[in-house]
Amino acid sequence: MLENKNQDKTDLESLGEFGLIDHLTKHFPLNQKSTIKGIGDDAAVLDFKDKKTVVSTDLLVEGVHFDLSYMPLKHLGYKAVMVNLSDIYAMNAKATQITVSLAVSNRFPLEALEELYAGIALATKIYNVDLVGGDTTSSQTGLIISITAIGEAIAEDIVYRSGAKENDLLVVTGDLGGAYMGLQVLEREKEVYKVNPNSQPDLEPYSYIVERQLKPEARKDIFELFKKLEAHPTAMIDISDGLSSEILHLCKNSKVGCNLYEEKIPLDPTVISACEEFKIDSTLVALSGGEDYELLFTLDQKEFPKIKGNPNLTVVGHMTADNEGAHLVSRNNSKIPLTAQGWNSFAKT
Amino acid sequence: MLENKNQDKTDLESLGEFGLIDHLTKHFPLNQKSTIKGIGDDAAVLDFKDKKTVVSTDLLVEGVHFDLSYMPLKHLGYKAVMVNLSDIYAMNAKATQITVSLAVSNRFPLEALEELYAGIALATKIYNVDLVGGDTTSSQTGLIISITAIGEAIAEDIVYRSGAKENDLLVVTGDLGGAYMGLQVLEREKEVYKVNPNSQPDLEPYSYIVERQLKPEARKDIFELFKKLEAHPTAMIDISDGLSSEILHLCKNSKVGCNLYEEKIPLDPTVISACEEFKIDSTLVALSGGEDYELLFTLDQKEFPKIKGNPNLTVVGHMTADNEGAHLVSRNNSKIPLTAQGWNSFAKT
Repeated sequence: MLENKNQDKTDLESLGEFGLIDHLTKHFPLNQKSTIKGIGDDAAVLDFKDKKTVVSTDLLVEGVHFDLSYMPLKHLGYKAVMVNLSDIYAMNAKATQITVSLAVSNRFPLEALEELYAGIALATKIYNVDLVGGDTTSSQTGLIISITAIGEAIAEDIVYRSGAKENDLLVVTGDLGGAYMGLQVLEREKEVYKVNPNSQPDLEPYSYIVERQLKPEARKDIFELFKKLEAHPTAMIDISDGLSSEILHLCKNSKVGCNLYEEKIPLDPTVISACEEFKIDSTLVALSGGEDYELLFTLDQKEFPKIKGNPNLTVVGHMTADNEGAHLVSRNNSKIPLTAQGWNSFAKT
Repeated sequence: MLENKNQDKTDLESLGEFGLIDHLTKHFPLNQKSTIKGIGDDAAVLDFKDKKTVVSTDLLVEGVHFDLSYMPLKHLGYKAVMVNLSDIYAMNAKATQITVSLAVSNRFPLEALEELYAGIALATKIYNVDLVGGDTTSSQTGLIISITAIGEAIAEDIVYRSGAKENDLLVVTGDLGGAYMGLQVLEREKEVYKVNPNSQPDLEPYSYIVERQLKPEARKDIFELFKKLEAHPTAMIDISDGLSSEILHLCKNSKVGCNLYEEKIPLDPTVISACEEFKIDSTLVALSGGEDYELLFTLDQKEFPKIKGNPNLTVVGHMTADNEGAHLVSRNNSKIPLTAQGWNSFAKT
């Protein structure tokens, strides 16, 4: 589909490297006060005055992190930005700028990259971040996207992974497992399509979980909610690899243990029905699925009244002494040690 | 050579993503005052107080930017850092932090990545920058390195590409064309090796130019020299794609023209003799060769006494009115329009 056989499509080489960057980025406005100079020099220039700067970077590789047979390029651009902004929000900071670098093979025409950048542009607009730099080069095979996100915060607002204390509440935003189940649906439809290219998939019943996979949203609203509620998380991380893996990161960095209650894990009804259809345990999906980009944080019990009843937040457990370890307390009240079954990008498939 | 057939080598998958990052980065000290938190959270935290932050990013792709058949991994790691720091110094800023992301296929054992990181570590030590973040993932084919460099400067010190004025002097640091000629030597030796794997190449006569290709140095010293001389460049860019391409960037961004004098272009004797041996015009090599990572800047003529006689700096021309265009004034005094013959990473080869 993306092969450059169409005579109406524009070869990347006809633009050259500088022409390509100019072309793809010319419609990105700069809105952040802290952006002094964006794209077009050796480096961007930013001004954070007396605030701290936070920086995060992620690399997305075709065939490892995304499959273009069901991931539209516009969604991919949007999601690539979300993956990075999510890390900034997980520091309880405001995302302000991104840089985007691409390695792309000649099989992509210019119009494909324009689609990708349309998704990046939409994300920068909705999340109010400036695109301030990047690099574009050729690759011998697929598409690789490298994004660095930059944000700002005052020192006392920044939340690390290391601040959780014994007895703190463990809280998760939104619901879990949707992105993973959306992927299962898309992969099944891909197999059906291989057998019968004329089949018309009906994704309507799965729209929520498919959207969770294809167009996730980073939780910018939680950063704003904390400000409004005057809540101060003690530790925080974003859920990119699955709840289990992220809990273990918090425990390791904060030197605490954890009890996670299976019955408390927030699951959308669509996730539960998809799990039944695919005969997968929904708890396992929430623990190991990943890519939901929700936030996981700990909170002093004294602050519970601030978050009580908030539909965005679910208390799923509490932190314990380090030597008690990290456990899932199952519905039948047995304690199962949590293991990092988060997705391992080096595993042989 | 790098295929993972050796039983003594460590599979990447045995470490997993988190284990790999931890393993590769555990010996990187943090020395910059502005580094509050490095690797190990969702984002790094930096503190630039009342200074401006500069950010630059580059992507290096195996088979496009480097060839591992003659590029040792340690040198590659070192060079990847240099490419980015060079952009920071080209803003007349102090480089302070880097992030490093890798996509790497399973054909690389852990020991290969350790070599790569040994080069990165050496670069961070010599140039005094902190490694503060990154991402490591698998790739289906080769090695891809994405580096973002961050630096700081006070606002009035920052030099953009856009500040050159008519009659400003055009100045280049060091000498040009060495990296390109080093590449010619290495590619010739690779062909010889293919025919006769027992051949022992004698690279001794080419050591300067081979080092320019394999282990370039970013011009941190120039940033320090400007401070010492109290010199204030009006515009600056680093020479990554060749002198001609960079001059055109300065002209376009500053809306000026330029006369570049062929006889003034600084060439090392080794470059001249290699050009004779390879029957390539040395001026063309300097104009289009690239990868020297020298700096090109413009300076008000009044400041000439400050740089006069400095062995690091060569005046190669002067800026003219925009409508006069950008020209090379040849040794026989004819004017030849400069064209961007810098390396085009999208050109079919």
